[in-house]
Amino acid sequence: MTESMRALRYHGAKDLRVESVPVPELLPGQVKIKPEWCGICGSDLHEYITGPILTPAPGKPHRLTGCTVPLIMGHEFAGEIVELGPGVEPGRLKVGMKVCVEPTLFDDDCPPCLDKRRNQCNRGGFFGISGWGGGFSEYVCLQEKVIHPLPDNVPTDIGALVEPLAVAWHAVGAAKHSPEHSALILGSGPIGLAVLLCLLAKGCRQILVSEVSPQRIQHALDIASLHPEVDIKVLDPTKEDVVARAKELCPQGNQGPNVAYDCAGVQKSLDVAIAAIRKGGLVCNVSVWEKPATLNINTLVFEEKKIIGVACYLEGEFQEVIEAISTGKIKNPEKLITAKVGMDDAVTKGFEALYGSREHVKILVHP
Amino acid sequence: MTESMRALRYHGAKDLRVESVPVPELLPGQVKIKPEWCGICGSDLHEYITGPILTPAPGKPHRLTGCTVPLIMGHEFAGEIVELGPGVEPGRLKVGMKVCVEPTLFDDDCPPCLDKRRNQCNRGGFFGISGWGGGFSEYVCLQEKVIHPLPDNVPTDIGALVEPLAVAWHAVGAAKHSPEHSALILGSGPIGLAVLLCLLAKGCRQILVSEVSPQRIQHALDIASLHPEVDIKVLDPTKEDVVARAKELCPQGNQGPNVAYDCAGVQKSLDVAIAAIRKGGLVCNVSVWEKPATLNINTLVFEEKKIIGVACYLEGEFQEVIEAISTGKIKNPEKLITAKVGMDDAVTKGFEALYGSREHVKILVHP
Repeated sequence: MTESMRALRYHGAKDLRVESVPVPELLPGQVKIKPEWCGICGSDLHEYITGPILTPAPGKPHRLTGCTVPLIMGHEFAGEIVELGPGVEPGRLKVGMKVCVEPTLFDDDCPPCLDKRRNQCNRGGFFGISGWGGGFSEYVCLQEKVIHPLPDNVPTDIGALVEPLAVAWHAVGAAKHSPEHSALILGSGPIGLAVLLCLLAKGCRQILVSEVSPQRIQHALDIASLHPEVDIKVLDPTKEDVVARAKELCPQGNQGPNVAYDCAGVQKSLDVAIAAIRKGGLVCNVSVWEKPATLNINTLVFEEKKIIGVACYLEGEFQEVIEAISTGKIKNPEKLITAKVGMDDAVTKGFEALYGSREHVKILVHP
Repeated sequence: MTESMRALRYHGAKDLRVESVPVPELLPGQVKIKPEWCGICGSDLHEYITGPILTPAPGKPHRLTGCTVPLIMGHEFAGEIVELGPGVEPGRLKVGMKVCVEPTLFDDDCPPCLDKRRNQCNRGGFFGISGWGGGFSEYVCLQEKVIHPLPDNVPTDIGALVEPLAVAWHAVGAAKHSPEHSALILGSGPIGLAVLLCLLAKGCRQILVSEVSPQRIQHALDIASLHPEVDIKVLDPTKEDVVARAKELCPQGNQGPNVAYDCAGVQKSLDVAIAAIRKGGLVCNVSVWEKPATLNINTLVFEEKKIIGVACYLEGEFQEVIEAISTGKIKNPEKLITAKVGMDDAVTKGFEALYGSREHVKILVHP
């Protein structure tokens, strides 16, 4: 008889249900984990509000997993190993170990995956979005290589933040951000604040943050207050001209920050990002857009500016983030957590709370 | 009494006149040159058709030169030194020497200029566009540092091609194009063909060219026939699906060329460029756009693609191009020249001929 477990399953827009589903079978080479904390991601929220977007709609099975909606959500999670599958010898991973999960699935038929670029996977498999299970459940079974042990000083609630921090860590790495480069962050939601923490970890000395929501401005100011040695300014675009202020605050060389991180993904944030950066500067887009942008390419040409798009993380970056948290390079990651709720409250006090206001940053669910 | 000379002066759209103007005064630190050949650039043509665009319109003096239309055009030129101004000692430059001119003016109040990035000049001074004279005239007087001697084996008609070749050379450098990278060139007009020559000079082994005009396809094929050792394919987007062909012809890794050079600057070329390049690939825009583009930023995000805009050249790149021509690394640059005309024919057999058909690549004027 198949055992059952509770899981939060996504059926479509505004339709997330706590259901009883079979415990997944532990296949050879896999490890069974009991998730302890799983964060609600912006992309989960997008699915909840207007999906299916990235989740495979009924009748359109995912290219890698073959699954369709309904499926278990959740890809920002950490928990405890409860069983090693056939062929997995205790070593790097052991029963009882606290671990977090890198949700980009490995496709061994895919050249980018084989080249350590799972974020560019040809079939784009994502645990908790594409099928094969998700973190909002009592148990998950996953390939050994996507599981990372957490050091003793990194509890599983912080372990659940490794995923969004790895997105930001990758962005800052892809932007080749060196400590002497100044930064402008557009939007201080979960990803914007994660970029802020990663820039601080990498020794960045001058950071501007632009945000409209008073609560999110306060979150950025709270983090800034923990780093009095760094020049952090939080700007409100409803009250000041962010482009003019950015030019004024970063006067070195030909003015403006070296890199803008667009964590908002709207026309206005892109326009400000391009205009604010210095000549030769870079816009790093760390957001998913809801509609196409309008772009005057000549603004890139005559000032030799660049735009890059980044997604997820390369192989190895998850471990870098875990180490950066453990060694204190990434400081106070707990500042990203604004609420913790049980599975039964995940919809009302989790998804609906995030949708209804900009008060929250990251809400963790205990499955 | 001021001496006079003949020059081609731009008065506005469709209004270019051969006129008698004063010979410019030779100021301290300047060198007087008699231009022998001056090419008609795409931007000159834009001014002729729909300008003033980059030229300073009446009532709007240029920020660096203080000039307005009417002004002498021409910035792709080479000629002979006829006089050294006060304070210029014969040495690197001598009377009788054949030279070409780097038309980006040096502004000694500008941080990018002082940092060898005259292409990002805060006041954007361009000889032959912003004032202070131009190459379509009997004499020009210029700052010593923008003048480059031509080796004996580089005649002045080829010297007039150094400027457009330097644009392409800079683009290929900014794209960090290494020999093992494959390339797609969108548009084989003067800049597209110059990019082709520079990629060949840098040892690129696989190059695709997309072009709609039969004459320009032929020009690309002519250059390809001189390099049988390199895999060059010329594609016609009216007859085949360039994106599908690019994926098929560059199958290594995750498919598609590493870099696309957009030398057309229209929505279709940008769309094809982004779709054709491989994941992690780069679109290098080497064109000036007439209107804003529409861009789905998510196409950059999920495949980690980049767009860079490039303009002109950095300090030092002009000399690199001259050396590459002289040493034969850039082969057969004369293939870019499709006609040579006198100053009196510059409008009818030059500008009008370029506007009327896509038969020509580069037309040189003998001032």
